[in-house]
Amino acid sequence: MKQFNEIDYTNIGAKRVGIGVLGYGFMGKVHSNAYLKMPYTYTDPPAHPVLIAMCGRDAGKVKDSAMRFGYKGYYTDWQHLVEDPRIDIFDNCANDYLHFEPTLAAIKAGKHVVCEKPLAKTVKEAKQLVKAAGEAGVKHMTCFNYRFLPAVRLAKDIIERGRIGTIYQFRGRYLQHSGHNPDEMLENVKYATVKGSGIMLGLGSHVIDMARFLIGDIKSVCGLSKTFVKTRKTMSGKNHHVEVDEANVAVVEFENEAIGTIESSGVSTGHKNQNTWEINGSKGSLMFDLEDLNHLYVYLEDEQNEDVRGFTKISVTEPSHPNPCLILPRGHNAGWEYGHVHALSHFVNCVLNDLPVAPYGATFEDGYRVQVIMERLKESSETGRRIQLTF
Amino acid sequence: MKQFNEIDYTNIGAKRVGIGVLGYGFMGKVHSNAYLKMPYTYTDPPAHPVLIAMCGRDAGKVKDSAMRFGYKGYYTDWQHLVEDPRIDIFDNCANDYLHFEPTLAAIKAGKHVVCEKPLAKTVKEAKQLVKAAGEAGVKHMTCFNYRFLPAVRLAKDIIERGRIGTIYQFRGRYLQHSGHNPDEMLENVKYATVKGSGIMLGLGSHVIDMARFLIGDIKSVCGLSKTFVKTRKTMSGKNHHVEVDEANVAVVEFENEAIGTIESSGVSTGHKNQNTWEINGSKGSLMFDLEDLNHLYVYLEDEQNEDVRGFTKISVTEPSHPNPCLILPRGHNAGWEYGHVHALSHFVNCVLNDLPVAPYGATFEDGYRVQVIMERLKESSETGRRIQLTF
Amino acid sequence: MKQFNEIDYTNIGAKRVGIGVLGYGFMGKVHSNAYLKMPYTYTDPPAHPVLIAMCGRDAGKVKDSAMRFGYKGYYTDWQHLVEDPRIDIFDNCANDYLHFEPTLAAIKAGKHVVCEKPLAKTVKEAKQLVKAAGEAGVKHMTCFNYRFLPAVRLAKDIIERGRIGTIYQFRGRYLQHSGHNPDEMLENVKYATVKGSGIMLGLGSHVIDMARFLIGDIKSVCGLSKTFVKTRKTMSGKNHHVEVDEANVAVVEFENEAIGTIESSGVSTGHKNQNTWEINGSKGSLMFDLEDLNHLYVYLEDEQNEDVRGFTKISVTEPSHPNPCLILPRGHNAGWEYGHVHALSHFVNCVLNDLPVAPYGATFEDGYRVQVIMERLKESSETGRRIQLTF
Amino acid sequence: MKQFNEIDYTNIGAKRVGIGVLGYGFMGKVHSNAYLKMPYTYTDPPAHPVLIAMCGRDAGKVKDSAMRFGYKGYYTDWQHLVEDPRIDIFDNCANDYLHFEPTLAAIKAGKHVVCEKPLAKTVKEAKQLVKAAGEAGVKHMTCFNYRFLPAVRLAKDIIERGRIGTIYQFRGRYLQHSGHNPDEMLENVKYATVKGSGIMLGLGSHVIDMARFLIGDIKSVCGLSKTFVKTRKTMSGKNHHVEVDEANVAVVEFENEAIGTIESSGVSTGHKNQNTWEINGSKGSLMFDLEDLNHLYVYLEDEQNEDVRGFTKISVTEPSHPNPCLILPRGHNAGWEYGHVHALSHFVNCVLNDLPVAPYGATFEDGYRVQVIMERLKESSETGRRIQLTF
Repeated sequence: MKQFNEIDYTNIGAKRVGIGVLGYGFMGKVHSNAYLKMPYTYTDPPAHPVLIAMCGRDAGKVKDSAMRFGYKGYYTDWQHLVEDPRIDIFDNCANDYLHFEPTLAAIKAGKHVVCEKPLAKTVKEAKQLVKAAGEAGVKHMTCFNYRFLPAVRLAKDIIERGRIGTIYQFRGRYLQHSGHNPDEMLENVKYATVKGSGIMLGLGSHVIDMARFLIGDIKSVCGLSKTFVKTRKTMSGKNHHVEVDEANVAVVEFENEAIGTIESSGVSTGHKNQNTWEINGSKGSLMFDLEDLNHLYVYLEDEQNEDVRGFTKISVTEPSHPNPCLILPRGHNAGWEYGHVHALSHFVNCVLNDLPVAPYGATFEDGYRVQVIMERLKESSETGRRIQLTF
Repeated sequence: MKQFNEIDYTNIGAKRVGIGVLGYGFMGKVHSNAYLKMPYTYTDPPAHPVLIAMCGRDAGKVKDSAMRFGYKGYYTDWQHLVEDPRIDIFDNCANDYLHFEPTLAAIKAGKHVVCEKPLAKTVKEAKQLVKAAGEAGVKHMTCFNYRFLPAVRLAKDIIERGRIGTIYQFRGRYLQHSGHNPDEMLENVKYATVKGSGIMLGLGSHVIDMARFLIGDIKSVCGLSKTFVKTRKTMSGKNHHVEVDEANVAVVEFENEAIGTIESSGVSTGHKNQNTWEINGSKGSLMFDLEDLNHLYVYLEDEQNEDVRGFTKISVTEPSHPNPCLILPRGHNAGWEYGHVHALSHFVNCVLNDLPVAPYGATFEDGYRVQVIMERLKESSETGRRIQLTF
Repeated sequence: MKQFNEIDYTNIGAKRVGIGVLGYGFMGKVHSNAYLKMPYTYTDPPAHPVLIAMCGRDAGKVKDSAMRFGYKGYYTDWQHLVEDPRIDIFDNCANDYLHFEPTLAAIKAGKHVVCEKPLAKTVKEAKQLVKAAGEAGVKHMTCFNYRFLPAVRLAKDIIERGRIGTIYQFRGRYLQHSGHNPDEMLENVKYATVKGSGIMLGLGSHVIDMARFLIGDIKSVCGLSKTFVKTRKTMSGKNHHVEVDEANVAVVEFENEAIGTIESSGVSTGHKNQNTWEINGSKGSLMFDLEDLNHLYVYLEDEQNEDVRGFTKISVTEPSHPNPCLILPRGHNAGWEYGHVHALSHFVNCVLNDLPVAPYGATFEDGYRVQVIMERLKESSETGRRIQLTF
Repeated sequence: MKQFNEIDYTNIGAKRVGIGVLGYGFMGKVHSNAYLKMPYTYTDPPAHPVLIAMCGRDAGKVKDSAMRFGYKGYYTDWQHLVEDPRIDIFDNCANDYLHFEPTLAAIKAGKHVVCEKPLAKTVKEAKQLVKAAGEAGVKHMTCFNYRFLPAVRLAKDIIERGRIGTIYQFRGRYLQHSGHNPDEMLENVKYATVKGSGIMLGLGSHVIDMARFLIGDIKSVCGLSKTFVKTRKTMSGKNHHVEVDEANVAVVEFENEAIGTIESSGVSTGHKNQNTWEINGSKGSLMFDLEDLNHLYVYLEDEQNEDVRGFTKISVTEPSHPNPCLILPRGHNAGWEYGHVHALSHFVNCVLNDLPVAPYGATFEDGYRVQVIMERLKESSETGRRIQLTF
């Protein structure tokens, strides 16, 4: 190996951060991918994360997943994971019902904490996490990844600079169709299983967070939720009674007087992952669609000559746009995974440089407020009344 | 004029029908255009309408309008129009506040009656028109023109043949932006003027009718309405207090258990005339956008091979599609005006051949039910309660 | 008929113009529709055309067609039509092979002449028509209807004001699919029949005219033409050898150094009537699609802030846009037929007010040049050489 | 670290493969990203690549790049890189003018070789690489990454199963706009610099490869190339005479009688990275757009009921579609980078399991043929003649 220059990785210094991930499934992989991509996504990356350990109950599966990403090792019990002193950031990618307890333990162990959305299964638990994280003085983020997509960040900037004026209306929806077929086996309709949380927690939470992120807090809600397929067969031939919601529609009113609709559905046939929103203001409008995530559609009345006004389709991929990526020149589209890449890079940056996670990142407080809104929407659906919110 | 063969129009016989139109403005012109196009739009047209008279209070303006279309003459008082014995069909294209009285008089004079939407300003008036038309035994149609667009009719056919299965969800909205700018003069924001009826009556009525037409009756509603620009300057420099609604959002539940959202807005910046709806069923979905009215977007799970499933963009312009037009070959797009051409041709056909206006045409009963729903939505917005409907 | 005000149509005066149309088929109907709509399409219409006569060889069919539009009568021999002194404008909507002789006769009879595209079947004939019309001093227009669509006219304006800078590239194509299926009966593939002229004359001529209209004259061409289905069955079971072209592709160079591609096809499966073009200039770009004819897509680099640049979708339906229509408010889409409405209104206006048909209307000179280009493209396909044009 | 299970990576065995990459710029990064993602992109990954070394002349820059991806080390001279015995695959991501010599050296050193497109700067060099690789018996791939996008692979499958019938037409183009502004500094217009290869080699090569991949070999070409901005200022204030092409248009004929257009441009204002193609066959059509890379648009006449035929927008993201990704569920869009991930995984798989690179991967023979076509197009542009190809 003539003239080979070996790189010494032991000496990168302060820019290293130890990562422990609970959960080796879809989300565990997506977060791991984000940590791996961090060093080469940015001109000046926040860190070279060190993937310390993954954790999951099935030793074979967690080992397989950990090896794919190059983790140093793995745990089968989260209580050992949260105690590992090499870990700076505890990242909870486990099932929704495992968000509360391990995250709380990690906070108590002094770890900075990321938790996938929804923050918890109940308002009470979410509140407790907010309190604990505040008291411990650790950084905390509810992983609402879509806030960090460049097109969404550009929208946020446009709104904040007043370029669409006073906001009148919001309409947001998140539609999938895994449950549309009544004959689909329960196991293929994850949101409907015993471990599933239903559609509002899974998809609606994203829409609610986006509404709050872009427009501000919500002051009243009135919702209607449905379960269309009340019984599903399991692969073992049993009948399972579906307890969770499959579709939700709601009208909301924001603190700033804007009104809106919020929808989420697991039975919107034909829609694989449609998460769209639109905002109308007195001077302009913005539209986004997750299945076309590199583009933002913008109408800015004061910024176009009168004869050529209309919605402009912006490829939000210029180096001057938010969150540019080193390996993606203009027009070379980023994939869905970049929401997490940017979100986790932001969090790592906040941890290493002691910066505030808000307003771009969703804190546990944001996660908690989304939880409150979801509970009130359910209550509204049951009582048939519009509910004024208090947090 | 060697060998010129003069056509004798006096002897076309039963296929002639006398038309009297109240109103010479936008709608009066659009209906007149429809009558003129009727003979050459269809292979076998229902009639060669005879344009007897237009009616309006301003003699100069009504004459100008009448001459453009070739009317035999004009009236300046609707009470004379409804008495003209040459008139078979009384077509009310006047301002909303003039829908009730002249239509009632025409019914009493034994005319078949078409009335622009909304049928009336109140539920009470609408109910009275339904009763009168029923007793008189005349044909009656509330002119919900969008039912007759070929793409909408194809959607209706697809639903009725069960091709999208059980219907789960509807989302419909009608968005314009004439009022988005708070500094816009009152006179340019027609819905907000003294003669204006607001956005729900003007635009929301279309969405509600479409929902009922395609899915069936609604059993409960919960709405929220807003007026964002509460004061507008008039051209004479006065301040006008805007009484009407500018934006409406609602969640509804249908008799068949489907749920939906219904929206209408006059302040949706960037939208000139966006009237879109989407329907999700257990086996497929349908989408339509009025600003792209020749196309229907269809997802039919059982009718596509698995690897190529997705929404199909259908140009609904084949001779085998509903309501084909003689002068428009496939792919040669029909304009917005064809909703009225087909609607009024349908009505003329019903009159001449004693056919039922329903289910394709909206009767006065349909107009009445839309009116009920609009009143309940307003009530719901005020009380914050979901309201169960009775008709 | 109490208080009925009868309108006297005999006395409209100078704003009347007598129309004679040769051909009662598709184009005859479309032109007649345009004349009928003229009076109510514009705030100040150029005329109330008087539909004098249609002409066609089949007496029954021409009478039926003439009656649908309210013509005074009909002829069965075009030689009588061109002599009718009541006729001011002779409008040739006959089959391509009947463009030359009757148009020449009408010119000689002193009529102003409109001829459907292509102007003739050969360059020689086209040249002769140009000469004759020039000598007779009559107004002449080759009916390239798409020039008059509001979106196209807006494009023309944008280019002329230099808003897209120096033009680099053009790409235009007109795709239909009536011939895509080799088993389709000859009679259903009109372009391939004995009376058919092939795809270049039928569709390619439109693209070539649009290229010249928007960019300027072409200086060299290199083309390739194909007939994919060389034999078709007729309904009577015979084999027909297809002589005409079915698909054409070409690269062209404009006088102003821009380069481009021009395509036309009758075998582009899935395309009913796709006529799209795009123009790239140093400061902006324009795109149009006939199947979405109310919109123009515009990128104007100097007219948008840097972070929100992209193609803007303009609904070219504002009253301030070119060729607004009285019965179509903003966002209420015009149909395909309006190309002819505006084209023929322009011509009538030129006739009545002695205005030049060019540059907005295509004169016979334009029709002739398109014919030259088509012949050179065919020659180029055969010889495999790029050909420099002379006119 | 209680109960921590450390992973032993030394013993993964045959599924490891050593990678050496020449070039640390855009392409070097993109290929490195692909190797990093390989293990967790697939249910059963072809290998866990070991990133041995990057190579580049600037030691500081190559070290920085190598560290971001975790390479063991780096070289500053490619002659040492090709000799490193730990390297199984030599991956040439250097500038176009460095494709030939190092690749040839690597072949001679017995390495399996990947080379970015275009394979070489001349036909002669390309031919020599084909010969050398064949003689050495190493695996070789020209990195035409777009072949491996799931939507493109689905298109290939559809064509091969005859679902679109006999192919009539192809139209492909690759448009960017880095050079559209004549005042843009030379350094920002990479294709125009001394090291730049022009647009045909940079972008046109992709279109030509795609045409050959999906339709088959080309038998004749006729092209036209232009340089619109003949002089550009450099940042140091000098004038640079641009020698390379900026825009190319061509008509081609395929061996199977299909015809097509091929375009590439660096001055198509408004287009950041538009690489679209369309194929029309006797039974269906396919359309693709790189800026919407997760979708394929398909028209399959025999596979849809007559009333609902049209282009279907397929989200090619199902587990049953080609090249599914473990971390991307349906509707969760893959980014542009996955072309390389799948291409390089394919190559690694071919190397480790001795499988043929063709037909899904482009071999050096494919790279050579693309080179021939590009040279003939240039020749055709200069001579004005259609050229019959021989390879």
